[in-house]
Amino acid sequence: MVPDKVKTTPHWTPGRSSETLADLGENRLVAALTRRLALGEDVRAGAGDDCAVIGRPKDARWQLLKTDVVIEGIHFLPEEDFKRVGWKALARAVSDVAAMGGEPAHALITLAARPETAVAQIEALYAGLRKAARKFGVSIVGGETSRSPSPLFLNVALTGWVERARCVFRSGGRPGDALYVTGRLGGSIRGKHLDFMPRLAEARWLTAQFKIRAMMDLSDGIGADLPRLANASRCGFELLQERLPCADGCTVAQAVSDGEDYELLFAIAAREAAALESAWRTQFARLPLTRIGSLTKPGAKTRQAKSSGGHDHFS
Amino acid sequence: MVPDKVKTTPHWTPGRSSETLADLGENRLVAALTRRLALGEDVRAGAGDDCAVIGRPKDARWQLLKTDVVIEGIHFLPEEDFKRVGWKALARAVSDVAAMGGEPAHALITLAARPETAVAQIEALYAGLRKAARKFGVSIVGGETSRSPSPLFLNVALTGWVERARCVFRSGGRPGDALYVTGRLGGSIRGKHLDFMPRLAEARWLTAQFKIRAMMDLSDGIGADLPRLANASRCGFELLQERLPCADGCTVAQAVSDGEDYELLFAIAAREAAALESAWRTQFARLPLTRIGSLTKPGAKTRQAKSSGGHDHFS
Repeated sequence: MVPDKVKTTPHWTPGRSSETLADLGENRLVAALTRRLALGEDVRAGAGDDCAVIGRPKDARWQLLKTDVVIEGIHFLPEEDFKRVGWKALARAVSDVAAMGGEPAHALITLAARPETAVAQIEALYAGLRKAARKFGVSIVGGETSRSPSPLFLNVALTGWVERARCVFRSGGRPGDALYVTGRLGGSIRGKHLDFMPRLAEARWLTAQFKIRAMMDLSDGIGADLPRLANASRCGFELLQERLPCADGCTVAQAVSDGEDYELLFAIAAREAAALESAWRTQFARLPLTRIGSLTKPGAKTRQAKSSGGHDHFS
Repeated sequence: MVPDKVKTTPHWTPGRSSETLADLGENRLVAALTRRLALGEDVRAGAGDDCAVIGRPKDARWQLLKTDVVIEGIHFLPEEDFKRVGWKALARAVSDVAAMGGEPAHALITLAARPETAVAQIEALYAGLRKAARKFGVSIVGGETSRSPSPLFLNVALTGWVERARCVFRSGGRPGDALYVTGRLGGSIRGKHLDFMPRLAEARWLTAQFKIRAMMDLSDGIGADLPRLANASRCGFELLQERLPCADGCTVAQAVSDGEDYELLFAIAAREAAALESAWRTQFARLPLTRIGSLTKPGAKTRQAKSSGGHDHFS
């Protein structure tokens, strides 16, 4: 029952006793909470990547695990169309599976709602979940319902799988790699955050055709997410802000820090850039692919977004 | 990406438009929400059992999936010791894996908390989660943190596995089977609901030594849970209330309907009863095992608890 050997990182600095989550901030909270977790030998990646990755080093396929929550008043407004909320809840998790190069498989839904919630709203929520499940080949295999004292809380736990050779971590980038993003960034709050299309087909194509060295999906804005990818790869980065593909009507600052883009950010060897761009245009004529900068040596001076650093869930 | 064939149950009665979750009740809500879900061919059990069961019919092992939430003000009080809350959150899901005859493996944690929550409380929560993870051989491989506008939500998504031959569903009981419960029932609110020990070792022993035909863990009280097991097995049941193993200081009514016992309820062929009871006493001398009744033919008159029918999360 207990793993034969465990990997554990012993360094842990307890927080000050009066410190709150808002003081600490999300990145430091997650780092603190996950630092002391003992992991079995079958864990290829734990907290810190888009999904957890489970399997033995030589297995042909690895399993992907992801959990993701949307909360009324935080991720959607009470007056929102609940069918779109259901779509969003599952599509967010699918986007994370895509960012590892994988395919989604099975989902479990946790729903907590006030007893006075209309059944019709919950039916709409499930209609959105089912629509996304059909679109992305996911079986919703169960879950749980509970009373909530206030906001509606919808958690999706999603499994997936990826061929070992196509699994892309955040940590595989190297200095000199070209950085790309799909689609256009910014302004998601005007509606895209509820209707976005996870880049599943695009990620599967990328990992079949090219050696993608590092990848993630953009959830908190490239200003927060690019440093995460660079740090995981032990690289610095150069971001060419003038190249950022801004959504219609968005400023560069909004493209950097609005968040909820659910586009792919990835690194690829610079020598593959021309072949990638050419093949992409043929395959996905309607979706832009933009080279936005490079990974650099660690410690090299980074040219980063000067505006906000993106979204912190506790600030 | 899309399953080749899907199983789906087309019968669906939309709720009245003004109906609320409290009107509908939890059992009917779950039935309504899960009835229209399309499932891939690799789904052995979806919603309706203690865990979802994934695998092909002849695989040596099947995967188990479970999600479970604890919410401040519903499942625990704000002044509770958060280390015990963390233990409870993971132990509840482990109890469901045990009820299928399986072993837990990997967990993902979703935590939503108010920004003003003390970091020390969250550290205590994680200390409880880690304690349970060590005890039951679980790797916590990631999760998510989010701001919550009010109560603390802690969701655990847990994977596990079970040898195909030892997987126990709720649906395998037959008329005449003897019904057993482990431990003592009732009074969990006095503390056991936070410190209970999932019957993992006991369930593993049972499925190794005997043909257990149907099993579940008692979360909503035997008054609510026994009819679920009997219905899943298309049986009636006879519950001998005078035999119920009541916790110290509890009445039969409390043993029937308090809930949160996290004991095992299972059905076994009556001819195996004597051998089971004898072997159990040798193996688990300190934990009672009590024969509390039998499964009967469907439609036969059932002798059920006259007191409350157990816990409905929306009532």
